[in-house]
Amino acid sequence: MTQKNESLTIEHTIRVRFNETDALGIVWHGNYLKYFEDGREAFGRHFGISYLEAKKNGYATPIVKTTTDHKLPLKYGDVATVETTFVNSRAAKMTFQYKIKNEAGDVVCTGETIQVFTDLKTETMLFVIPEFFENWKKQHGILNE
Amino acid sequence: MTQKNESLTIEHTIRVRFNETDALGIVWHGNYLKYFEDGREAFGRHFGISYLEAKKNGYATPIVKTTTDHKLPLKYGDVATVETTFVNSRAAKMTFQYKIKNEAGDVVCTGETIQVFTDLKTETMLFVIPEFFENWKKQHGILNE
Amino acid sequence: MTQKNESLTIEHTIRVRFNETDALGIVWHGNYLKYFEDGREAFGRHFGISYLEAKKNGYATPIVKTTTDHKLPLKYGDVATVETTFVNSRAAKMTFQYKIKNEAGDVVCTGETIQVFTDLKTETMLFVIPEFFENWKKQHGILNE
Amino acid sequence: MTQKNESLTIEHTIRVRFNETDALGIVWHGNYLKYFEDGREAFGRHFGISYLEAKKNGYATPIVKTTTDHKLPLKYGDVATVETTFVNSRAAKMTFQYKIKNEAGDVVCTGETIQVFTDLKTETMLFVIPEFFENWKKQHGILNE
Repeated sequence: MTQKNESLTIEHTIRVRFNETDALGIVWHGNYLKYFEDGREAFGRHFGISYLEAKKNGYATPIVKTTTDHKLPLKYGDVATVETTFVNSRAAKMTFQYKIKNEAGDVVCTGETIQVFTDLKTETMLFVIPEFFENWKKQHGILNE
Repeated sequence: MTQKNESLTIEHTIRVRFNETDALGIVWHGNYLKYFEDGREAFGRHFGISYLEAKKNGYATPIVKTTTDHKLPLKYGDVATVETTFVNSRAAKMTFQYKIKNEAGDVVCTGETIQVFTDLKTETMLFVIPEFFENWKKQHGILNE
Repeated sequence: MTQKNESLTIEHTIRVRFNETDALGIVWHGNYLKYFEDGREAFGRHFGISYLEAKKNGYATPIVKTTTDHKLPLKYGDVATVETTFVNSRAAKMTFQYKIKNEAGDVVCTGETIQVFTDLKTETMLFVIPEFFENWKKQHGILNE
Repeated sequence: MTQKNESLTIEHTIRVRFNETDALGIVWHGNYLKYFEDGREAFGRHFGISYLEAKKNGYATPIVKTTTDHKLPLKYGDVATVETTFVNSRAAKMTFQYKIKNEAGDVVCTGETIQVFTDLKTETMLFVIPEFFENWKKQHGILNE
């Protein structure tokens, strides 16, 4: 598969849990970060770049930045689609963008997360892209031009 | 109290719950939005501008935007301070900025939330600042110059 | 379908979210009540007896009792099956029993929840089985002998 | 302090978070296990028998059983008191009972948790009471008659 710097995307379906709603009857805003994580993990399983993959190589990938933009509410029982897209960069970071759509296809929430790589032993942050991630990018046709 | 457009701030102490940590042994990033909410509610109780206050006046104040920036981790049992600051604007919005510090005084997380006003009956968003909020601003010396 | 007091059961697959683990690296015990809810909702969708169904008929079905028994841990990324079984009774209650199994088929957690019916308007508890629930039981061959 | 098998108790105040409520406008039942944990941790800090204390001695103390009994709802903004009581037993277990009261002093929820001791290295369960816990019991006048 050659994608030449194009972004990689995956869709994942979620169903709103009753316990994810709040007293306003809609999904509590903070729970969208769980849906982003659901999307990111689905991405990881599909494209082979998960938290467990990083761990096996000696790294953790803590989140250092998140943004969420809420357009429409989701209610209990709603089924929604999380579209997760890998955003390439030359930095030693993993950036994902998210677009959550309801069943009618309307965008309910968008957002972004940025992860860095930390060495599991030294607990220090990496300033160069670790080899396993560089290899993963090559494997998926993502170039650091 | 006359503050002439100066921001209003309050500090609130939180203690990290065991169930707020994740398999990395640190607070799961999404839980910082709970700490922001703790700070915002402490702000509301102190300055009289809570979710319940809005509801009494016929409005909901849903979150439409969040950002979090993570600098340092928090661990189980850590005690931290959430500094919540009201950011004035002419728009029909409520903006808060947050700074979470650990016991050593280091900043572990910063962020922002933006809320809009919706009419509880019509479920539509307001484009002008509702009267109760205008009054609240005046009362705290916050001017729309 | 005639089941003559036999219990109704459904299986539902869940995948452990990273944010459901704790600093011990395993699912935080309280999250099993979320898996029970996932199972109960899957049961409701399949057998037509959900929270929304109750609401449509003017009732809420709050949980009044829960028990969980933990035999084995679940870890991040584990896939498990929640087996949810309706337990018949003559009382104005809904009782479900749960059995969660890991991919090897080992039981990791069992438990039970009991719900009562409350009138959404008067917020009082019912001491007789509401008609919609009586009908649902008949429809599924569950007799109050 | 000599308590001769009498139970040790501590009270801890909690405030219901907005994000702990559900679409029914009340605290989602599963969140009571968080309040129990708040109570148990307050007990641990006061009486010196925390998760971190156990860890320092080489043990984890996973929860193996929970029960909750719900009498009354709690709503957003409610302040409640969690009364946590240590229940002595000869088994290699830690049992706590909980009573949550609202501001009017009414009991809203009771429950129990049982923890066992596991060796952090071997990940196996202990069938005899570990020394640090035996010492802790003696220190607080709790006898295994």
